[in-house]
Amino acid sequence: MDATRDGDVVRVPPPGRERFYDSQGYGRPDGDALDLVSVEAAHLLFRGDLDSVDGMDLPAFLAATDCTLPFLVYKDLRNRGFYLSPAREGWVDDPGTADFVVYPRGEGPWDDAVEYRLRVVGERETLSASSLSESDTLAVVDEESELTYLSVDHPDLRGESASDLPADAPAALLADRVVLWDPPGDLYRRTFYGQPLDGRQAAGPLQCSLIEAAYLAEHGAIRVDEGREAVLDRGRDVEGERFDRRLAVYSALRERGVVPKTGFKFGADFRTYATVESADDLGHSEHLVRVVSRDHAFNPRDVALDVRLAHGVRKRIVFALTDPEGTIDWLSVERLTP
Amino acid sequence: MDATRDGDVVRVPPPGRERFYDSQGYGRPDGDALDLVSVEAAHLLFRGDLDSVDGMDLPAFLAATDCTLPFLVYKDLRNRGFYLSPAREGWVDDPGTADFVVYPRGEGPWDDAVEYRLRVVGERETLSASSLSESDTLAVVDEESELTYLSVDHPDLRGESASDLPADAPAALLADRVVLWDPPGDLYRRTFYGQPLDGRQAAGPLQCSLIEAAYLAEHGAIRVDEGREAVLDRGRDVEGERFDRRLAVYSALRERGVVPKTGFKFGADFRTYATVESADDLGHSEHLVRVVSRDHAFNPRDVALDVRLAHGVRKRIVFALTDPEGTIDWLSVERLTP
Repeated sequence: MDATRDGDVVRVPPPGRERFYDSQGYGRPDGDALDLVSVEAAHLLFRGDLDSVDGMDLPAFLAATDCTLPFLVYKDLRNRGFYLSPAREGWVDDPGTADFVVYPRGEGPWDDAVEYRLRVVGERETLSASSLSESDTLAVVDEESELTYLSVDHPDLRGESASDLPADAPAALLADRVVLWDPPGDLYRRTFYGQPLDGRQAAGPLQCSLIEAAYLAEHGAIRVDEGREAVLDRGRDVEGERFDRRLAVYSALRERGVVPKTGFKFGADFRTYATVESADDLGHSEHLVRVVSRDHAFNPRDVALDVRLAHGVRKRIVFALTDPEGTIDWLSVERLTP
Repeated sequence: MDATRDGDVVRVPPPGRERFYDSQGYGRPDGDALDLVSVEAAHLLFRGDLDSVDGMDLPAFLAATDCTLPFLVYKDLRNRGFYLSPAREGWVDDPGTADFVVYPRGEGPWDDAVEYRLRVVGERETLSASSLSESDTLAVVDEESELTYLSVDHPDLRGESASDLPADAPAALLADRVVLWDPPGDLYRRTFYGQPLDGRQAAGPLQCSLIEAAYLAEHGAIRVDEGREAVLDRGRDVEGERFDRRLAVYSALRERGVVPKTGFKFGADFRTYATVESADDLGHSEHLVRVVSRDHAFNPRDVALDVRLAHGVRKRIVFALTDPEGTIDWLSVERLTP
């Protein structure tokens, strides 16, 4: 069967609708004929169900239409047993930033349900934070044409950790950290601030990060001789503007009852615990949080790295998008197997 | 017991040598007296073995000497049962870039053996590629004063994968990849180039990355209508100068009998297989390779991320340091538990 290009669609004459839409969910019917987008036509050429489009075979058609990346994704999802439609204005409701609307397995364009709104991204494209935030599902095509599916979500991080703080505990600024030489016992044990100088189990001096110390000083829990501002200044000295952004995220997490601790070993800003009752009996930390500014451009490979690492340690990677007004958007990304 | 500062050493009067060197390995003897560096003095203050240095207790001494980071590392290694000496010119042989010379457990400065030449790095410092390359062991102190030990090595990546290539197989440049619509069967199956368009087990069209295609074209194995240069140009179009650097590393690995495939899912440039006999029966890939230029400044947190991820998938991260002359230095980093 042969088809022809008509503007930016590929037209299959009757009985195109019956052959390719009614039972297989390709394209958009027009009477007994059928309109396809390039990627659908390419797939029908690949399967041998179409012989040609304007006389072109698959190699010629792909070279002429530049739809290789979405074709690879379309083909993969078809292989996995899904029907999907191009997210084309007028063909589906609310196309948004998606390239495809994928139906639940066993359903198709005749039904109402949508499983994924899928966006196709090449490994080398960058993703603005705002466009990532508007995405539902990404299919990243790497340079060797392997696919990675990622699901984007907007988590509401909440916890029930203890939050009672001491007042005016003396603390000393020491290079890029703060030490409480004689800390209130509950500061570490109950509320999990700082790190005992002599190991987990020991009482005695407590070291805090500048972030922890800035938060504690702001809440009147510790008193540094040089004053609260000195802690902030030291933080900005050693980290620049990142310090304030990280502090904003740290504070937001603490206000939500979540305990953030360093995520250094995982290459993140923080790992977080939703419920800390005692530092002696910590549960598993659930999230890794990376702080980025709202104008950050994500490199898909860096996202893949974070997602893979988080998965390997049974956590979820959360990007905290910050802006100068102090608003924070939370964005989680997870690997998905359709 | 009290000590006094004398220039940049701390001097313990007799019987300082007997008390702190002979059985405990602190400092450098001077007759029956003992010279210490600040970090050793801090540790003796911390233990209560020294009462003061110039009248200062530990908090005052740390504030005055700015040796908090090395003190944390020194203390940790002492806790783990190691003796260690400051890598000070004249105190140890060949101090190099190290901060401490750590002796094998059970041995000390009286013996000849050295277990680690340790450099102390704060989480926020950057590490030039050359200084990382000259390091033996790093102790990274993160913002919450937790320690991560990293071992740096210079691996010799070699393999025994099949390397016989076809000649002049027709291939088509398609956006940022290359397709062989009718490939020689062994190209994928034996030598593991490309990715079959229709899944691992299938014969049929083979997709190659631009890197693979550039290498194959250079060796006369494939022929692209537009010519070999067109593949390189396309690579530079989509990746800039990184393309040539990555191609140089890819080529070097292939020349060593190692098969590089995309490392995208691990956030790296390549994963590598030392011995591929057949793509149908792949072993485990041993390394993740990240290509960086020789003037790259490593952020310890990014290194921690790579190291942790690689460990989690039972691989080793290798940094391939490239320069404009085409020289490549290979540098591996692994987590170490002293």
